[in-house]
Amino acid sequence: MDRNLTKVLLDESEMPRRWYNLVADLPSPPPPVLHPGTHAPVGPDDLAPLFPMSLIEQEVTAERYVDIPEDVLDVYRLWRPSPLYRAHRLEKALGTPAKIYYKYEGVSPAGSHKPNTAVPQAYYNAEAGIRRLTTETGAGQWGTALSFAAAQFGLECEVWQVRSSYDQKPYRKIMIETFGGVIHPSPSTLTAAGRAVLEKDPDSPGSLGIAISEAVEIAARNPDTNYALGSVLNHVLLHQTVIGEEALLQFAKIGVTPDVIVGCTGGGSNFGGLTFPFLREKLAGRLDVTIRAAEPAGCPSLTRGVYAYDFGDTAGLTPLMKMHTLGHDFIPDPIHAGGLRYHGMSPLISHVYELGLIEAVAIPQSECFAAGVRFARTEGIVPAPEPTHALAACIDEALRCKESGEPKVILTALCGHGHLDLAAYGAYLAGEMTDHTLPAGRLDAALAGLPTVTG
Amino acid sequence: MDRNLTKVLLDESEMPRRWYNLVADLPSPPPPVLHPGTHAPVGPDDLAPLFPMSLIEQEVTAERYVDIPEDVLDVYRLWRPSPLYRAHRLEKALGTPAKIYYKYEGVSPAGSHKPNTAVPQAYYNAEAGIRRLTTETGAGQWGTALSFAAAQFGLECEVWQVRSSYDQKPYRKIMIETFGGVIHPSPSTLTAAGRAVLEKDPDSPGSLGIAISEAVEIAARNPDTNYALGSVLNHVLLHQTVIGEEALLQFAKIGVTPDVIVGCTGGGSNFGGLTFPFLREKLAGRLDVTIRAAEPAGCPSLTRGVYAYDFGDTAGLTPLMKMHTLGHDFIPDPIHAGGLRYHGMSPLISHVYELGLIEAVAIPQSECFAAGVRFARTEGIVPAPEPTHALAACIDEALRCKESGEPKVILTALCGHGHLDLAAYGAYLAGEMTDHTLPAGRLDAALAGLPTVTG
Repeated sequence: MDRNLTKVLLDESEMPRRWYNLVADLPSPPPPVLHPGTHAPVGPDDLAPLFPMSLIEQEVTAERYVDIPEDVLDVYRLWRPSPLYRAHRLEKALGTPAKIYYKYEGVSPAGSHKPNTAVPQAYYNAEAGIRRLTTETGAGQWGTALSFAAAQFGLECEVWQVRSSYDQKPYRKIMIETFGGVIHPSPSTLTAAGRAVLEKDPDSPGSLGIAISEAVEIAARNPDTNYALGSVLNHVLLHQTVIGEEALLQFAKIGVTPDVIVGCTGGGSNFGGLTFPFLREKLAGRLDVTIRAAEPAGCPSLTRGVYAYDFGDTAGLTPLMKMHTLGHDFIPDPIHAGGLRYHGMSPLISHVYELGLIEAVAIPQSECFAAGVRFARTEGIVPAPEPTHALAACIDEALRCKESGEPKVILTALCGHGHLDLAAYGAYLAGEMTDHTLPAGRLDAALAGLPTVTG
Repeated sequence: MDRNLTKVLLDESEMPRRWYNLVADLPSPPPPVLHPGTHAPVGPDDLAPLFPMSLIEQEVTAERYVDIPEDVLDVYRLWRPSPLYRAHRLEKALGTPAKIYYKYEGVSPAGSHKPNTAVPQAYYNAEAGIRRLTTETGAGQWGTALSFAAAQFGLECEVWQVRSSYDQKPYRKIMIETFGGVIHPSPSTLTAAGRAVLEKDPDSPGSLGIAISEAVEIAARNPDTNYALGSVLNHVLLHQTVIGEEALLQFAKIGVTPDVIVGCTGGGSNFGGLTFPFLREKLAGRLDVTIRAAEPAGCPSLTRGVYAYDFGDTAGLTPLMKMHTLGHDFIPDPIHAGGLRYHGMSPLISHVYELGLIEAVAIPQSECFAAGVRFARTEGIVPAPEPTHALAACIDEALRCKESGEPKVILTALCGHGHLDLAAYGAYLAGEMTDHTLPAGRLDAALAGLPTVTG
């Protein structure tokens, strides 16, 4: 295959048939997840009210590969394998000798990588006899993905969306409904958690933490209902590794290997999905590659958070996970990359970061949107606010190559399009975008709230 | 290649390198375009103030094929060849023995087929030394496409968008600006035409006719500025034939031939682009295929309009074209498929219809949106309101196959996604969609305004 093509495509017959579990190849396993009350490691029974046993097994498995069910592959085929692009026109505009590639997940039904895990989560729940899935959503990508996935397996899907996003982004609500999902603004009067918040503040704008509490409450209360999470957990990252496995095949086709991989990190599922198969190759000594996470300066869990046991939600109801965290009661500033506004980081990615296998940088959002506009005008895709962080890190690397003359190969995770996030571009183009950098005092205050975990 | 695949992909090396001109193969040429004042056939000089000579030549050429310039192919490569999908999941949901395929143009930068002609139009204008392009846009697809295309060749792009759409669809405005275009609500104070309208009615919601007048006025007044049109004309349909040429190759790969092709018609460029290469095969006796246009019941130019000389714009400034028309002063009801709200039909498609080579049906919009929702839930793509007309016609055909037991192969033109049109789905899902069927009295009144053309 001509290595100068714009698109490197795979046939459906080349679609990966197994997900990859990085845990099998790490020099040490990640620390256990702890029960919030006893601080003892959680067991399968602790998670059974919310998840089907097949997903709980995937969460803790030490097997290197997990087979992808045929029914999941059948749905993946609607958009997978996703294309790997060479950004010829961006390279030319930058005047860089670097070769820039991007793996584009915006071709999926939701417009991002999220359906890669929504589809198997819906499949395993349907297989377990579950009738309905509940979840939370912020900006709406995850709610859209789960709504679509649930429809493929005859499940109902109920989404609690943070009230402020629900009001600001009516298109996401409509897209979720178009796929057949039911959507509620959160806090809602449908749950005790929601009613408690509304009693104190009838005009509450909501938060991801409250929305999680509502979705979990409904799932825990109804035996025919389970809860689904769109990032952070091991099984979610496992499902996303189809991205990296495809990218490895695509590079092999053109006889190219990446020198640098950059991806954005919020909860970590897109980043882990692309990079873990490359990390396997690096750990095996078959690939020399630098892997870099790009996170928002306003929510810098990897670069400025601590590595400690913390809750996954604001209310402190979830198990304790050892992860890079800004403190579970840290409320990030309202940056436009809603998918990166999370106080913690996937425990697996945090562990890999501690092992020194990946790097991280934090970037202010105006630099990210400048990269997004540059990319749109040269490559024709308007990126979602989240991957503009990866694009900013990519352009930074490419400009260093311009200075040094090095023709490095850079791979970028372009995890979604920005068609439903255009208001953020409007703010940027109108010169009305504020940069948010986390003040040290605010970080210290949030970290003071970390739980004390012994043993 | 396995004929049961979900996606039939082409490599970049298989991208068509020539556009196809149907005129070369028709039993009779379409009637000439006439000067609005003299009623004599227009010559190249009449069009030179607005278009570069290369496009004027393409407008009147009798050559069967026109080579696609390398620089245009380079931009096409960003998204072309576009995928041909087999709608396995929709077929299953319908329980039909029919095999449904759709050619998807939503992968382009604008999200529709429009860049297929925006890119060459920008290229030829840049080659002719033009500095700026002006155009009108309704819902915004065409303005987005031209804004992107202009950026690829260093041209400025100025778009007049119908005021009511400008106010209702802020995302389109932002997308046009993200690609680098400048956008004005129309009527504007920047032109004599706009000021004249605003003097009479400061709150005018605008119309496509007024927006065309503004864009044409600026182009005619400035030697470094040309005007670009997104449908109707021969050279526009010529550029769109890349769609059909690719689809022919894709069907040949899997050894399948379509029995029925359905596409939506507004100005006719998407429909002509897909079907003209198939018509060539039909005219040559190599293919037995039924080709059907689907138009809105609220704006039925093929099924209820007359075949007569009429103006292309409401104000009566353009040359006279013989076409199917509802009368140039007919104002269509506000159906959600903004791209189909045009009083006339491409003269070339009108001619082909008169020759009996294609059929046409008119469909009310609620039936179209029902088809769109059904398609989204099974195939994962939310279609733009325009191609839901093609999907409704496709589902209709597939259900007839269910009754008859015929395993027909149906090809559908899915010319764009609906990410920026979700408000229309919101209205449909909320049960707030009105169907518009054109009353006979209103049609008669509009047709009474047709110009009298002798000779």
